[in-house]
Amino acid sequence: MFEEKTYTERRQELKNYLKKGFYLFLGNKESPMNYPSNTYKFRQDSNFLYYFGIDEPDLAAIIDIDNDDEIIFGDDRTIDDIIWMGTQASLKEKAEECGVKKTAGFALLTGFVNKAAASGRRINYLPQYRAENSLLLQTLLKDSSAGQCSQDFIKAVIRQRSIKSPEEIEQIENALEISYEMNTAAMKLTKPGMHESAISGIIEGISLAKGNGVSFPVIFTVRGETLHNHYHGNIMKEGDLALLDSGAESDLHYASDITRTFPVNGKFSEKQKEIYNIVLKSQVNAISICKPGRKFKEIHLETAKIIASGLKDAGIMKGSTDDAVMAGAHALFFPHGLGHMLGLDVHDMEGLGENLVGYSEEVSRSDQFGLAYLRLAKELHTGFVTTIEPGIYFIPALIEKWKADNKHTNFINYNALERYMDFGGIRIEDNILITETGSRVLGRKPIPKTIEEVELCCR
Amino acid sequence: MFEEKTYTERRQELKNYLKKGFYLFLGNKESPMNYPSNTYKFRQDSNFLYYFGIDEPDLAAIIDIDNDDEIIFGDDRTIDDIIWMGTQASLKEKAEECGVKKTAGFALLTGFVNKAAASGRRINYLPQYRAENSLLLQTLLKDSSAGQCSQDFIKAVIRQRSIKSPEEIEQIENALEISYEMNTAAMKLTKPGMHESAISGIIEGISLAKGNGVSFPVIFTVRGETLHNHYHGNIMKEGDLALLDSGAESDLHYASDITRTFPVNGKFSEKQKEIYNIVLKSQVNAISICKPGRKFKEIHLETAKIIASGLKDAGIMKGSTDDAVMAGAHALFFPHGLGHMLGLDVHDMEGLGENLVGYSEEVSRSDQFGLAYLRLAKELHTGFVTTIEPGIYFIPALIEKWKADNKHTNFINYNALERYMDFGGIRIEDNILITETGSRVLGRKPIPKTIEEVELCCR
Repeated sequence: MFEEKTYTERRQELKNYLKKGFYLFLGNKESPMNYPSNTYKFRQDSNFLYYFGIDEPDLAAIIDIDNDDEIIFGDDRTIDDIIWMGTQASLKEKAEECGVKKTAGFALLTGFVNKAAASGRRINYLPQYRAENSLLLQTLLKDSSAGQCSQDFIKAVIRQRSIKSPEEIEQIENALEISYEMNTAAMKLTKPGMHESAISGIIEGISLAKGNGVSFPVIFTVRGETLHNHYHGNIMKEGDLALLDSGAESDLHYASDITRTFPVNGKFSEKQKEIYNIVLKSQVNAISICKPGRKFKEIHLETAKIIASGLKDAGIMKGSTDDAVMAGAHALFFPHGLGHMLGLDVHDMEGLGENLVGYSEEVSRSDQFGLAYLRLAKELHTGFVTTIEPGIYFIPALIEKWKADNKHTNFINYNALERYMDFGGIRIEDNILITETGSRVLGRKPIPKTIEEVELCCR
Repeated sequence: MFEEKTYTERRQELKNYLKKGFYLFLGNKESPMNYPSNTYKFRQDSNFLYYFGIDEPDLAAIIDIDNDDEIIFGDDRTIDDIIWMGTQASLKEKAEECGVKKTAGFALLTGFVNKAAASGRRINYLPQYRAENSLLLQTLLKDSSAGQCSQDFIKAVIRQRSIKSPEEIEQIENALEISYEMNTAAMKLTKPGMHESAISGIIEGISLAKGNGVSFPVIFTVRGETLHNHYHGNIMKEGDLALLDSGAESDLHYASDITRTFPVNGKFSEKQKEIYNIVLKSQVNAISICKPGRKFKEIHLETAKIIASGLKDAGIMKGSTDDAVMAGAHALFFPHGLGHMLGLDVHDMEGLGENLVGYSEEVSRSDQFGLAYLRLAKELHTGFVTTIEPGIYFIPALIEKWKADNKHTNFINYNALERYMDFGGIRIEDNILITETGSRVLGRKPIPKTIEEVELCCR
């Protein structure tokens, strides 16, 4: 946990902003894998971690601003629990570590919430993403109109969590230190003839050995054109590109999220180098132009232009780059967004609503193919942490569909694409902090990124 | 997947046994970690795997014996899904692989179930352990009295899944091959000064690299007396014993479950050897006396006697061994059961009800401390696969409590226990198949187990 005052100050800021009301925070329960007592690795709810820091299942908390009350609900361990799971600090002691003075047994939560609801008060809660907590809410709020998934509450949390403090940056950089190990190990160990799973398993093992495991399921594939490919069953061949998109969680559950693409045999071909350098150029440029006040959507579109222009030089696209990007023709090759917020969640705060996190009154979500997937579009502020992750992919199913539909024939050279159908995909991703004057790539040790650096590491 | 006929035959046997009725199988959905789209590694429901074999989320199936109908409900992927997750066989093709000829969109399930219910038929389902599926059942059965968590259905499934076929044994032995790697790696790599997590992370990485990950959360601890210790934060010291209780899942999700205890510095002390050899003797004896027709509870109690007798030789217990075990005094040191069934679940079929799996009309559960935790007690049959996992632990909190309560002072030498308060715990576990004449330890390569074998591997 951070120091007690971190949590006290975070809650104080929330209370100052919201001014009044009754707020309910549900911590996570264990998630059963294949029967009730065989559970996945416990992951606490990020909002609960942010305001209370206690990394254990079966807790809830309330903040009652009107009565200046803060209570954590949970149960102490029994002697049976001690045999099976060891001795532990009491809930009282744990609550003190985050500056909360009052605790109560979990069974008292229902009565407490009911009493507040009965006196006509509104119970404000955040969006639930675990069915266990949806069921719990059903029980807590017998009269469902007594509660609300409150927009003001959500916005207040997003406002706070969006701006990262130095101690949060330190946590993200701790996670990035694990990412350095994961990525360099993958580059060093990957060889033709191996199964992808042999590497993805080791990568996840490193994240568990050095931190709290992966921040999202590892993507490691020689079919990088499949964007969220969690299949690890391919045998990697001479000439394949391997794409590794992975992240670790620090001890306090802050995430890293890094993508590198490297040749399975350690040497890029000339054709691979050409496409790789387009992605790299667009990524480095995007990082260089991020700064407070700029809209992330503009940076996404400028990145798309560099990609389109590079693909034009390669003979794959044609016509006016600006027009091509405006029309969305580049999205055949770059069909996803440039990046997203990063923090306690790898897509930070996504559970609170992607549009509330990434969009604003000035910037609303496009419905154009590709651009619609952009998670972050609004104006950047000092203290934001985001990913920058452009890519170029050759997705046979999509190319064939667009070709059959005669889509964007004035911008795309379908004939030239014939020789890229088995190319795969390239993505390069770093995590950056928006500083007062621009941006800084996070991480204490740079992870190999240029062709020379990657080939050196692959040796 | 196994061959089509495996699944067809399993369903046919179920239908022959149940004779009539309408049976609903809910496959698992993805389990969110910290927001809806960030999910844990998918684990299909074991009963769904057993009868249908399709290892994917968002499926359900019905078997309607009266109308000779079998249908799998699920949705094919859209073009958007293909970009993000790749092309895939259609549901129709997947259903054919398990011999089911009819498929339907998932949305049609509700109507189908409602129609059957409306015609007065009872919808039989199995116990649910995932809240997502409990919520789904609420939706499917608007009139909850139309459905029932059926005892006959549960018993029929347990009857079938309890007897393992040769192809299932092969899967368990595949998982044990991964266990061999996990255990020998831990013995070789563990050194004083390391964090437990450095080893437990590598162990889990091996399970992911070579199989489907761990079959339950890794226990790796120098505080082995805490039975289900998932904390990996201790620094391992010279003189500590490390206890590794871990398992892997094979490609078709069959589990292994192995425990080994070894010295962190590679050499057992004389004091450690004495206790280790009591556990080893009791474990080898238990394996040698397992055979069809014997009650597992008797084998548990005979194992307890060997432990009590060994502890008597060590000056820790005293008095009549038979009386001590009858009174439950040994449970201060061996407070858990000798073993459990193993198969598609590491505690096989535990989600269907521990008593239905492990007990029978002749053998009911004891409420004596220790014996109450015995998961399997009933008569053994050819084809059962069980764990054999005795242990001796020195649990300070429990010893102090019993001493303060003057518990079993005629059987326990509390004075002698003073010098064992920091000893920790030892457990040795193998997986066995009940054969026609006795039992066979599963696994193609024996995992180091005697003091000599363990010390040799630790070098």
